[in-house]
Amino acid sequence: MFHFECDYASGAAPQVLRALAQANESQHFGYGEDEHCRAAAELIGRLCAAQVGVHFVPGGTQANLLVAAAALRPFEGVLCADTGHINVHETGAVEATGHKVLALPSVDGRLTADQIRQAAQRHRLDSTREHTVRPGLVYLSHPTELGTLYTHAQLEDISQACREANLLLYVDGARLAYGLAALPEVDLPFLARICDAFTLGGTKAGLLFGEAVVLPHLALSRDFRYHMKQRGAMLAKGWLMGLQFRALLEDGAYVSLAARANAMAQDLKRALVGRGVPFLVDTMANQIFPILPRSVLDALEPSFSVSVWEAVDDQRAAVRVCMSSTTSPSEAEALSAALMRALDGISVKNFAL
Amino acid sequence: MFHFECDYASGAAPQVLRALAQANESQHFGYGEDEHCRAAAELIGRLCAAQVGVHFVPGGTQANLLVAAAALRPFEGVLCADTGHINVHETGAVEATGHKVLALPSVDGRLTADQIRQAAQRHRLDSTREHTVRPGLVYLSHPTELGTLYTHAQLEDISQACREANLLLYVDGARLAYGLAALPEVDLPFLARICDAFTLGGTKAGLLFGEAVVLPHLALSRDFRYHMKQRGAMLAKGWLMGLQFRALLEDGAYVSLAARANAMAQDLKRALVGRGVPFLVDTMANQIFPILPRSVLDALEPSFSVSVWEAVDDQRAAVRVCMSSTTSPSEAEALSAALMRALDGISVKNFAL
Amino acid sequence: MFHFECDYASGAAPQVLRALAQANESQHFGYGEDEHCRAAAELIGRLCAAQVGVHFVPGGTQANLLVAAAALRPFEGVLCADTGHINVHETGAVEATGHKVLALPSVDGRLTADQIRQAAQRHRLDSTREHTVRPGLVYLSHPTELGTLYTHAQLEDISQACREANLLLYVDGARLAYGLAALPEVDLPFLARICDAFTLGGTKAGLLFGEAVVLPHLALSRDFRYHMKQRGAMLAKGWLMGLQFRALLEDGAYVSLAARANAMAQDLKRALVGRGVPFLVDTMANQIFPILPRSVLDALEPSFSVSVWEAVDDQRAAVRVCMSSTTSPSEAEALSAALMRALDGISVKNFAL
Amino acid sequence: MFHFECDYASGAAPQVLRALAQANESQHFGYGEDEHCRAAAELIGRLCAAQVGVHFVPGGTQANLLVAAAALRPFEGVLCADTGHINVHETGAVEATGHKVLALPSVDGRLTADQIRQAAQRHRLDSTREHTVRPGLVYLSHPTELGTLYTHAQLEDISQACREANLLLYVDGARLAYGLAALPEVDLPFLARICDAFTLGGTKAGLLFGEAVVLPHLALSRDFRYHMKQRGAMLAKGWLMGLQFRALLEDGAYVSLAARANAMAQDLKRALVGRGVPFLVDTMANQIFPILPRSVLDALEPSFSVSVWEAVDDQRAAVRVCMSSTTSPSEAEALSAALMRALDGISVKNFAL
Repeated sequence: MFHFECDYASGAAPQVLRALAQANESQHFGYGEDEHCRAAAELIGRLCAAQVGVHFVPGGTQANLLVAAAALRPFEGVLCADTGHINVHETGAVEATGHKVLALPSVDGRLTADQIRQAAQRHRLDSTREHTVRPGLVYLSHPTELGTLYTHAQLEDISQACREANLLLYVDGARLAYGLAALPEVDLPFLARICDAFTLGGTKAGLLFGEAVVLPHLALSRDFRYHMKQRGAMLAKGWLMGLQFRALLEDGAYVSLAARANAMAQDLKRALVGRGVPFLVDTMANQIFPILPRSVLDALEPSFSVSVWEAVDDQRAAVRVCMSSTTSPSEAEALSAALMRALDGISVKNFAL
Repeated sequence: MFHFECDYASGAAPQVLRALAQANESQHFGYGEDEHCRAAAELIGRLCAAQVGVHFVPGGTQANLLVAAAALRPFEGVLCADTGHINVHETGAVEATGHKVLALPSVDGRLTADQIRQAAQRHRLDSTREHTVRPGLVYLSHPTELGTLYTHAQLEDISQACREANLLLYVDGARLAYGLAALPEVDLPFLARICDAFTLGGTKAGLLFGEAVVLPHLALSRDFRYHMKQRGAMLAKGWLMGLQFRALLEDGAYVSLAARANAMAQDLKRALVGRGVPFLVDTMANQIFPILPRSVLDALEPSFSVSVWEAVDDQRAAVRVCMSSTTSPSEAEALSAALMRALDGISVKNFAL
Repeated sequence: MFHFECDYASGAAPQVLRALAQANESQHFGYGEDEHCRAAAELIGRLCAAQVGVHFVPGGTQANLLVAAAALRPFEGVLCADTGHINVHETGAVEATGHKVLALPSVDGRLTADQIRQAAQRHRLDSTREHTVRPGLVYLSHPTELGTLYTHAQLEDISQACREANLLLYVDGARLAYGLAALPEVDLPFLARICDAFTLGGTKAGLLFGEAVVLPHLALSRDFRYHMKQRGAMLAKGWLMGLQFRALLEDGAYVSLAARANAMAQDLKRALVGRGVPFLVDTMANQIFPILPRSVLDALEPSFSVSVWEAVDDQRAAVRVCMSSTTSPSEAEALSAALMRALDGISVKNFAL
Repeated sequence: MFHFECDYASGAAPQVLRALAQANESQHFGYGEDEHCRAAAELIGRLCAAQVGVHFVPGGTQANLLVAAAALRPFEGVLCADTGHINVHETGAVEATGHKVLALPSVDGRLTADQIRQAAQRHRLDSTREHTVRPGLVYLSHPTELGTLYTHAQLEDISQACREANLLLYVDGARLAYGLAALPEVDLPFLARICDAFTLGGTKAGLLFGEAVVLPHLALSRDFRYHMKQRGAMLAKGWLMGLQFRALLEDGAYVSLAARANAMAQDLKRALVGRGVPFLVDTMANQIFPILPRSVLDALEPSFSVSVWEAVDDQRAAVRVCMSSTTSPSEAEALSAALMRALDGISVKNFAL
């Protein structure tokens, strides 16, 4: 079975495992206060060209709930797209910290600066605003859950909207590696300038596990370790995460592996477009969302797993196909060949959306 | 620097790393729904000789807060020893789920069945009990935070007290490997019979990370994965934990490595007793708490790190020395030799407590 | 200034104040364990023709958050209309108990049974449902925040949908008095049969303050007082609320005063319709939502306060006008006369929506 | 039955009820934004001789949980005496906001400045402090739950300790009226100077209900109404509380009624001491804690209710006897006479503690 349903089906990139095998010979201070975490944090700071707090946590949901808990007062909430991961796929993790998620409608996974401005103004002008949740934080994901990317200009505008309205800005970068590779204009120094917090995802980018929470807003960082411990996000052997990030960041593999995944995804997209396959949404990075006939999905099923995103009609479904930093070219080619074979007997005209 | 201040300073046992290197070649289903987690869960069930729910989470604080969240209604609290990890060293993680920790005094880390009976009765007989937190769960650690062990009879009595009072019983087994090795009368089938929930610790027992939450009370298990996801404890690559537990449990290394650590700790204890060194508390497993002169600690400091537990007087401090599943005999010998050297010039009579 | 912007601008109905003056001479047991609370609870049980738990709390937000806290497990959420009070006007009170509010779109304040069925099914069929909040409770208000009412058949169907999907059903009856008066087919025995919990509002129905939480689902009632105390909703002099409910329920004034308010509101509605005034939504009870020109609102402003609900265009706004159990006929007439005067010079044709 | 078991068994002082009857004729803006609340807040500010935020909430538990929620970051806790109301009699209300109550041992209900200094220092010096709850707020009650009072010097020292350690200071004044009357050196201007927050209790001091939360720390006050609404503590007819406080504060009855209660309690204490009755604790205000033989309690039971505080031995129990602002002299005399009669046949020598 080849897994393309997500970008975390494989283990780690080889350099991660090598580093781990080597470090396993030594002992380390606990709870992220070791040389690997320190070195990885410094490296991230250098890549951001900014003074930033850096903390490593095992998973993305933890990162998200920690930032919400650290950034908000009890009566404040988080503005996000209704497709946002915190709104739909974290079992109410943010609400479990006591904060409402204030979802705004989105068609392609992105929020707009105008939506943020309007939401802030709606609250400010509401004479009963004390009866409503005050927006305190804006949550974006880049790339989004639909694989789309924000442009430099869009993010700049969003950042401006947040500052005007006294909102903190948090970018969930679970797939940031793919974003950095696909759209270099949104780079780490830019994110460090416009965000109060963002994550540099590891789990989906060649690590076994681990997300780096990067906090350009230094006041958020000061007591962040208390929050981490309280929410069970401070790993005893925290060095495991510092070590892994070092392994991929030091030689640039963090982005170059993602770039390879993006290229494989985009190659496949082009091949499908060539066959007349429509897409749910147009994407630039490692995730693509073709709309495929059930018969094609049935043909794939014994050997390839993809993720059914939503039924389009009785005959067809939009599926998510992910390439990842650990997908090998031969795996990608096997999927592409299987898809082309399955599509062979099928007339293009069936695909009009 | 040799680390003896805790039992999580080293990486993983060699068989864990070998399994990891091998599994890294394959792909796996996400979120703990893979073959390794399934196999590890089945293996734990067999070792418990019982039908149990098994879930793998990255850390011990997560395990503790998850069990509290899953077991309690909002107005219920957790009875525990005042030395209990949840009461002192988890930054209020249980309170952050909304539940009060109801600490009872303990001198050696252990609760007694009588304390539980009295606390339950105090609540039951209180005519204003609706104004007080109702005990709902009893938390023990075995071994305790002070390295002590409960006997089979003590645990049987505690379990009886819990059932009489309609309290759930949870045993934090972060160091259970050492307990199993040191006191075989408290084995997994026994724990599965008397507990509603317990953990089988991995982080301190030869894994890179991971705790198995074992739920003999099957109703607790049914929706446990929702709780895990909500609290950020469901690792995307959950197979990493199933794999590691398999690696140590399948060939018995989980207990045999712990037994070696216990033996090294007890050897060192005997050597120190031979020099007249007093102990804060008497222990049977991998942690020992000698009371040492500051001069001895100073002599160790450049090469060996131990954990200062509490100052006994101006001259002396009780320290914690841990051997772990990944401590090698040569490391233990190096520490022992250094300690004996440092004690050489010091008269026994200084040590009277 | 005459207040029509809400139904809680006046004090209590005269019989409430008389009862209070009389009871003030005596002493009472605290925390709702007195004869007045007991008698009021029994009376409510008789009116419901059912065995129900009854608890008195000072305010409606408390009632709502208490039912959520008592009814739900941590990872469960509350389905409600997006216009629902808990979703928009309680500053995230439900989220502050850790639970997500799962808002569904509504145009007139009502949920439908089909929406509930679809939401339940969507969760049940979702293979990643453990990553999403599980619906556990359905929240309705009757009358709704927009003054509309559910029919007997609609509520029966909703109740059926809830039972099929293992959801509890809660009706927020902050304005239930007006609903009972306007639509007798939805009476207390019916509500006691179809709901797990509902409130009988006092604050908006002639009491100084106080809501009765009625719990036909007796298991919810058993420990409800613990929840009340924990959330600060157990008033020391709880007898104040039992006394007030008795005063209005014993002689039927609870419903008859509401019926008078409904009649005054409906009279005013007819008069406005006669002048060609359009309405935001058609209502049967004590709240009406006429769409009025700014000039009319300006004319009212010095002497009458109404609530601007939403701007319809530059010239006009929908406003809420409330009659309440404590509005006197002369006050209602004064408003009606003022409105007619203000509308006199204005051509009907301006009002086409 | 005469109630002396608590100080909230009676209704309101006559002037409160008169004011209520009069105000009931008018209409008022909702949610505490009315003239009575404004006037009461200004009056309290004048009495404090300071700029303070003032908010009215129905009950004391609400006041306590609101101050904790407003004052603390998620990982911070509240230092208090182990006898503190928040620690023992609020069903974990503070923990339900996510914060640990850090109880310190007390024999007479009071904390000391030294305890606070030590607790703060213990945290500051702990190298693993991120694994522990950080003290953020100190909670005292004045008078305490045992009826004792802090001296001016003690409170000054505690305030100093809090400022040194960057802790906020909160005084629960549920019975502050009795404290102000018994010990004028601790007056409102002093409290406004040394505290960040305190309450001026109404429920136990002649109001039907209501506590004034006074916030000399103005930053705490700015968003306090959001917290109030979120926790269900913002009463729709908030004017009821402003009105009642005005009624007692404007003419000084708030303190003079309390002074009368104190005098009646102290008279009774002297009479009991004259009979050789020992006391659990010595008090100066409206609560006394005599240790009485069961036979005396049995004799009282048909006509007088007192509160059994704790059993001293098989024969005797410490009981709490409360006089309140609404206790009439004749009620106090009736109790005194009954007690003297019951003690008549009993030899003094039985009472040696």
